[in-house]
Amino acid sequence: MSIDPARLLADLHALRGYGRDGNGVHRPTYSPQDVAAREWFADKARAAGLDVTIDGIGNLLARDPRPGPHLLIGSHLETQPHGGWLDGALGCVAGLEVARALGGGIDVAAWADEEGHFGAFNGSRSAIGDLTEAEIDAASNRDGISLRAALAAAGYAGRPRLAIDPVRYKGYLELHIEQGPELDTTGQALGVVTAIVGLRGYRIRFEGQQNHAGTTPMRLRRDAGAALVRLASAIAREFPNACAARTVWTVGRIELEPGAASIIPGAATMIFQIRDTDEAVLDRLEALLMRLAEEEGRGPCRVVVTRLRATAPATMDAGLRAALEDACERAAPGNWQAMPSGAGHDAQQLARVMKSAMLFVPSINGISHDTAEDTREEDLVRGVAALADAAAVILRQA
Amino acid sequence: MSIDPARLLADLHALRGYGRDGNGVHRPTYSPQDVAAREWFADKARAAGLDVTIDGIGNLLARDPRPGPHLLIGSHLETQPHGGWLDGALGCVAGLEVARALGGGIDVAAWADEEGHFGAFNGSRSAIGDLTEAEIDAASNRDGISLRAALAAAGYAGRPRLAIDPVRYKGYLELHIEQGPELDTTGQALGVVTAIVGLRGYRIRFEGQQNHAGTTPMRLRRDAGAALVRLASAIAREFPNACAARTVWTVGRIELEPGAASIIPGAATMIFQIRDTDEAVLDRLEALLMRLAEEEGRGPCRVVVTRLRATAPATMDAGLRAALEDACERAAPGNWQAMPSGAGHDAQQLARVMKSAMLFVPSINGISHDTAEDTREEDLVRGVAALADAAAVILRQA
Repeated sequence: MSIDPARLLADLHALRGYGRDGNGVHRPTYSPQDVAAREWFADKARAAGLDVTIDGIGNLLARDPRPGPHLLIGSHLETQPHGGWLDGALGCVAGLEVARALGGGIDVAAWADEEGHFGAFNGSRSAIGDLTEAEIDAASNRDGISLRAALAAAGYAGRPRLAIDPVRYKGYLELHIEQGPELDTTGQALGVVTAIVGLRGYRIRFEGQQNHAGTTPMRLRRDAGAALVRLASAIAREFPNACAARTVWTVGRIELEPGAASIIPGAATMIFQIRDTDEAVLDRLEALLMRLAEEEGRGPCRVVVTRLRATAPATMDAGLRAALEDACERAAPGNWQAMPSGAGHDAQQLARVMKSAMLFVPSINGISHDTAEDTREEDLVRGVAALADAAAVILRQA
Repeated sequence: MSIDPARLLADLHALRGYGRDGNGVHRPTYSPQDVAAREWFADKARAAGLDVTIDGIGNLLARDPRPGPHLLIGSHLETQPHGGWLDGALGCVAGLEVARALGGGIDVAAWADEEGHFGAFNGSRSAIGDLTEAEIDAASNRDGISLRAALAAAGYAGRPRLAIDPVRYKGYLELHIEQGPELDTTGQALGVVTAIVGLRGYRIRFEGQQNHAGTTPMRLRRDAGAALVRLASAIAREFPNACAARTVWTVGRIELEPGAASIIPGAATMIFQIRDTDEAVLDRLEALLMRLAEEEGRGPCRVVVTRLRATAPATMDAGLRAALEDACERAAPGNWQAMPSGAGHDAQQLARVMKSAMLFVPSINGISHDTAEDTREEDLVRGVAALADAAAVILRQA
């Protein structure tokens, strides 16, 4: 009933070969290397006695044909561009290893495109019935390749899309690298996720008057870039007074138009994001953002805030969390912690239709979405062992 | 001895036809429409009895073959991309009209590439002996076309480059649209330039640590974009206390890397520019910039300031200014002003080797570098008449 560390690590390293990029992996969704990785994983799952389907969005579902009860364990196989070898891959291989170790009761899923090359959680949202054909029609990646064309090239076009049956499962578990510095900094071996942050994303556009940077006096300027800097500065000043303990916010992109040394920017755009596990905190900070933008809009430039994304925080199921916490205490006594997830995960989608929970292992130096991403082998093995332990307990529960 | 307003306006409108773009003109340096405009201008100058040469950098020099004294009058023929019809063109046609009106003593120049498609003042710098072959070898435009290739395509490659002879001239005069709102706002008809601003241009680069925007706590971030916003904000706060009355400064471009919504910028770059007519003010503000950058550099990100450009302010010659001022008072009694030029002009290069001065006519709404750039016909005619008046006086002076 226990996992095989050598088999687990061998599988992880084999999967690393699909799109290997230095120490990391470049395996964008639906790329030839991603399709090959799915085929490899399907073969492994079949060898473990599971029935495998890859569906019309690229979701891979490996079902245990034996009678229940069942738990669903999963993550994703594609990576960020020039990303890490464990982000997603660990959770899929962990599910497979737990299925092999327990000898029944485990279904394994590899959700397509968690990394969002073509959208946001298209795979897990499709599986819970929250992705429309119209959304698929409209989606494309940053290179302008349509999702339809990518699915056709991958060989998945025209296949039905699977809907998972929540009644079949006692819950959903996902093991993932932390992708942050918390466990690594505190020296903890495991983290049990309390909640996955909700996210609000905004485009903030400033419109002033483009003009000559030499001949236009300062007092007559309507400089959209200067207005952007004032609002970004006000956010940096005011948000620390209004946020919660673990709130994060980021200006990820700034563009001045036309962006020339000798031209006063006539327009400017900034992409801004807020994350917290508490919807009330997100609401409060959004209201603060709107107030600061409105104040800046009374100046020389027009300011328009557009909400681009809003995902709700997802609280993890208390019962599944307790099982994971007990398993952590057995695997690493006194050396684990409860913590929120600052990153989004497929578990936040699954949590909308069934009990869900997540387990984290440390990321060395907190690095992720980079080829330098890594986790010590002992931490990988301990994480999968704790996951198997918790899964066995959950399956035995009434 | 007086100018012909109908001929002047007809010529300006004929020149507008080369690269016409709505109300404006798109006539980049060495483009087919620019080459055609040079040929048209050469024909007009020959018809006025001048000897015309177009040289190896594209400078057009039309010399009066009669004995001196001589004045040099000029500007440029090419335009900004999708620019105005008068910026440069007015000064060239004005020189031609003054040459025709005075019937002798005027040489006319159309300096190549004042608008800087391939560099900074390549034409007028070549004419004063300040442009090396190595600089020409290295230059290219924003489309990656080399200056050598553009000169070859224009038919100018291999020609010698003309050096103007300062001894031949009593000075250099340039008539130009103001390109700013000063005359239009105050209702003045003419402006006599006191000095052309000097310019300092900087690239300011911030280096932090790229990381995940969800999983990295605020206190552990080294956000290069946040550092950039802090420095830009400090400049906006401190510069007004240290500048002179007409100093201008501009952040024209900001780039965050990698520029994604969910990634903390690991690097950021801003292009910053300062202009003033007083070198001491430029020095003082540069020192302030360096101090603010150094203070920001004590924070989580590295800050490197690189000076990209430094052009010295150019004071206009007092004698030539006096002649222009007298002519302005005759053309528009009590309705002209002395003023600095916030924009750069070929006159600042010519001023390095001979007495130079400039005259401005109003820009409607202060608009330039835009197809909407315009000046009332009465202002155009009055400006050229005042230029001819002053030129005649200067030529008669001992």
